[in-house]
Amino acid sequence: MNLDQIFESAQEAFLSFKNLPPAKKADFLDLIAETLEENRSAIVLMATKESNLPDGRINGELGRTTSQLKLFANIVREGSWVEATIDPADPERTPLPKADIRRMLVPLGPVVVFGASNFPLAFSTAGGDTASALAAGCPVIYKGHPAHPDTSKFVGQCISQAAQKSGLPSGVFTHVEGGVKMGQDLVKHPLAKAVGFTGSFHAGKSLFNIANDREEPIPVYAEMGSVNPIFAFAGRLESELVPLAENYVASLTLGVGQFCTNPGLIFVPSSLADGFANAVSTSVDKVSGAPMLHGGIAEAYDKSVNELELRSELNWIKSPQAKSELETHPAIARISVKDWLSDDVFQEEVFGAFGLMVVYDDSSELNAVSLKLKGQLTISLWGDGGELKAEQELISLLQEKCGRLLFTGVPTGVEVGYAMQHGGPFPSTTDSRSTSVGANAIKRFARPIAFQDMPSALLPKELQDENPLGLMRQVNGEWKK
Amino acid sequence: MNLDQIFESAQEAFLSFKNLPPAKKADFLDLIAETLEENRSAIVLMATKESNLPDGRINGELGRTTSQLKLFANIVREGSWVEATIDPADPERTPLPKADIRRMLVPLGPVVVFGASNFPLAFSTAGGDTASALAAGCPVIYKGHPAHPDTSKFVGQCISQAAQKSGLPSGVFTHVEGGVKMGQDLVKHPLAKAVGFTGSFHAGKSLFNIANDREEPIPVYAEMGSVNPIFAFAGRLESELVPLAENYVASLTLGVGQFCTNPGLIFVPSSLADGFANAVSTSVDKVSGAPMLHGGIAEAYDKSVNELELRSELNWIKSPQAKSELETHPAIARISVKDWLSDDVFQEEVFGAFGLMVVYDDSSELNAVSLKLKGQLTISLWGDGGELKAEQELISLLQEKCGRLLFTGVPTGVEVGYAMQHGGPFPSTTDSRSTSVGANAIKRFARPIAFQDMPSALLPKELQDENPLGLMRQVNGEWKK
Repeated sequence: MNLDQIFESAQEAFLSFKNLPPAKKADFLDLIAETLEENRSAIVLMATKESNLPDGRINGELGRTTSQLKLFANIVREGSWVEATIDPADPERTPLPKADIRRMLVPLGPVVVFGASNFPLAFSTAGGDTASALAAGCPVIYKGHPAHPDTSKFVGQCISQAAQKSGLPSGVFTHVEGGVKMGQDLVKHPLAKAVGFTGSFHAGKSLFNIANDREEPIPVYAEMGSVNPIFAFAGRLESELVPLAENYVASLTLGVGQFCTNPGLIFVPSSLADGFANAVSTSVDKVSGAPMLHGGIAEAYDKSVNELELRSELNWIKSPQAKSELETHPAIARISVKDWLSDDVFQEEVFGAFGLMVVYDDSSELNAVSLKLKGQLTISLWGDGGELKAEQELISLLQEKCGRLLFTGVPTGVEVGYAMQHGGPFPSTTDSRSTSVGANAIKRFARPIAFQDMPSALLPKELQDENPLGLMRQVNGEWKK
Repeated sequence: MNLDQIFESAQEAFLSFKNLPPAKKADFLDLIAETLEENRSAIVLMATKESNLPDGRINGELGRTTSQLKLFANIVREGSWVEATIDPADPERTPLPKADIRRMLVPLGPVVVFGASNFPLAFSTAGGDTASALAAGCPVIYKGHPAHPDTSKFVGQCISQAAQKSGLPSGVFTHVEGGVKMGQDLVKHPLAKAVGFTGSFHAGKSLFNIANDREEPIPVYAEMGSVNPIFAFAGRLESELVPLAENYVASLTLGVGQFCTNPGLIFVPSSLADGFANAVSTSVDKVSGAPMLHGGIAEAYDKSVNELELRSELNWIKSPQAKSELETHPAIARISVKDWLSDDVFQEEVFGAFGLMVVYDDSSELNAVSLKLKGQLTISLWGDGGELKAEQELISLLQEKCGRLLFTGVPTGVEVGYAMQHGGPFPSTTDSRSTSVGANAIKRFARPIAFQDMPSALLPKELQDENPLGLMRQVNGEWKK
């Protein structure tokens, strides 16, 4: 099929899929999860081989993928996500009678999804964007990531197989392969109505530009990474120096540092900088080198770290090691807050296990940091109760720079739940109003429509007086089931 | 103040305003409404003079403006709009303990608002976008519309006066004046976080482009008008020919046709085309000419209608009349569905009381129309029960092209309520996911943030365990107060 045929088939599928009863849509999502589960061993074999990621991680990631699908199945089955809202008519109102108006969310149309190299399953073919788009009622045209072509194709077949078993038109999911040009052509196609992307700033921003240059601009949800700063305060850091250093190193080096919530930046008070650096150094010595996702990523990591090595502002806690074909090693440097503030290059993401420790004298310096800081997926604050209370102004400023604010622990490990926000101010994503993880991701592929004086026989079940689906709705401004 | 000072003052105001207790924010909105009410006679005098709109209309529009402010005050006071969501911790979970995650909507930051010439009050200085931005917690930088400078300035002073009385920083609202260049500079300013606009396609789309070309792109909610098609079916049209023709003419000529929901396009079956055209002609003869908002708009109307007069595809039901300095007259033409389909020019909006009646032979021709049709704010379907039931496929297709679908009545008269959707697919707006009228407009100026393991002493009231504000929230996936 050529691109026109692919999109026409998706559009045709859309017109029936959007009207499928929620329970059937939910069954389809569950069936995709089941099909993936049935093919677990084959998928794990392919994905470990293509990603260099270990067995345990890929098995875990498959579990995350199927549980995401099941979460969206439950959300669709429960149904309240459509935000059904009813303003009843008032024919007696003066000077003009009031019409009956009913509003709900409906799917946008065919969606183009791009997968991420660092999550060959959970943010790829049957990953978050595909699951939430299908849940919303949008067919998906998925471009396989060239870093894991076989895994992508096979998972795509699992989805298509589930669609067929569910009696859905094949256009509900299409797997395509290709490079940059293919990606651009997908985003340019007039029948595409939205784009989901996880990857680099360069690629995400260029798709965003293409989508806005279309005759009909469409939303692009590009998650483009982040350095996920941690702000450590003296009181808490002193009392938990070693465990916090260990947590930090574990998060920084998890999956060879290839997470979008990898904490690439940590602010440490000067009074504890040497102690923390020592603890980090001890901890990082226990981490063995490991292969990155593919050669290109390993080269890019080495290039970035080597460039930083030329900067006299940096002192190395853990020096970059010579490149090896099969292993990449963590590297950690320290810099003064004054130097950090002087050049934006020090807040650019180095994809991999590179950490920059910024040493500050006084927490008053951190207000300047918070103003300079670019948009982030996450920001973490490590302080004891008193410290956090004293830093309310800083906390208020930092809220403007992130989508998730953490007060213990580390940013890696993004819970899939109702309250998760995985998305933040630009440049961490192109749309801070949306999330790519958790229940609310379904809404990124939907828009509201209002029906005025629609005959009750034609009303979607979600908006019928009897509330046959038992949804939580807003009726005349009141919340009720 | 220069632009930098204006935005710095807005940003400073933002950092305190965003944390203002909801009840105080609501009081501020109520106080704006009161202040406008106290100055009713002065405002009405200025606005009628500057807009050529009659007394009754402007008085009504002021009522709409204050009731919008009061609606948002109630929404803020009630508080559930923040979508508070709590996923409690589970320290016992294996293999990893589950963190406590709490999510809510927070304001975007300083917002730039552009008013509309056709609504000098309800879509201008203290109009929908200003009200919803302030309600969300965003300071507003408002650019006065040059068509009603005195009204705009005076209403701006009322808002500033209410801010001062409420003890709010002056940067919470700033009124600026200027032309196209000023508008562009406002959208380009790095501290601007979103844009609300109502006006022409040309101006709205150019602001959208500027916002996306910024180093940090920001959302632009531009409502750019629409031809709001009506699809009339034979059964219903035959039984209500004269009243429907009268309704149609009343809606088309309301406010000299200067509404964004003006029904510029109507599809009529050929069997009734002559009868409907006669009834429309009789009805339109009773409408007297009236001055448009300003000379520029009247000239643009004449120019568009004169260009259409050169098209041989059109037959005139009501011919365009010679331009008069003080009066503009309605003009209505008919065209075959075949000719309509042949050129996109026939679905371009002519701002004013111009109507195009498209004659079809068979409703099967309307599927082609629905595919060709550009995005609209509204679409209306006039059919009897049987006809609508038979046209489900068409209705399903038309849903993809609009934000509001009507089944009786006319699209003008946009209710301000909970269920209203005023916004539709491009080019009617730049963002079909949002509305500029009704309760949900508050969400266009907000984004979600998640707090992970935040100490309870620091949690915003909206997310505290005790639910001190009594919000409807989602806790562990369950809806509860």
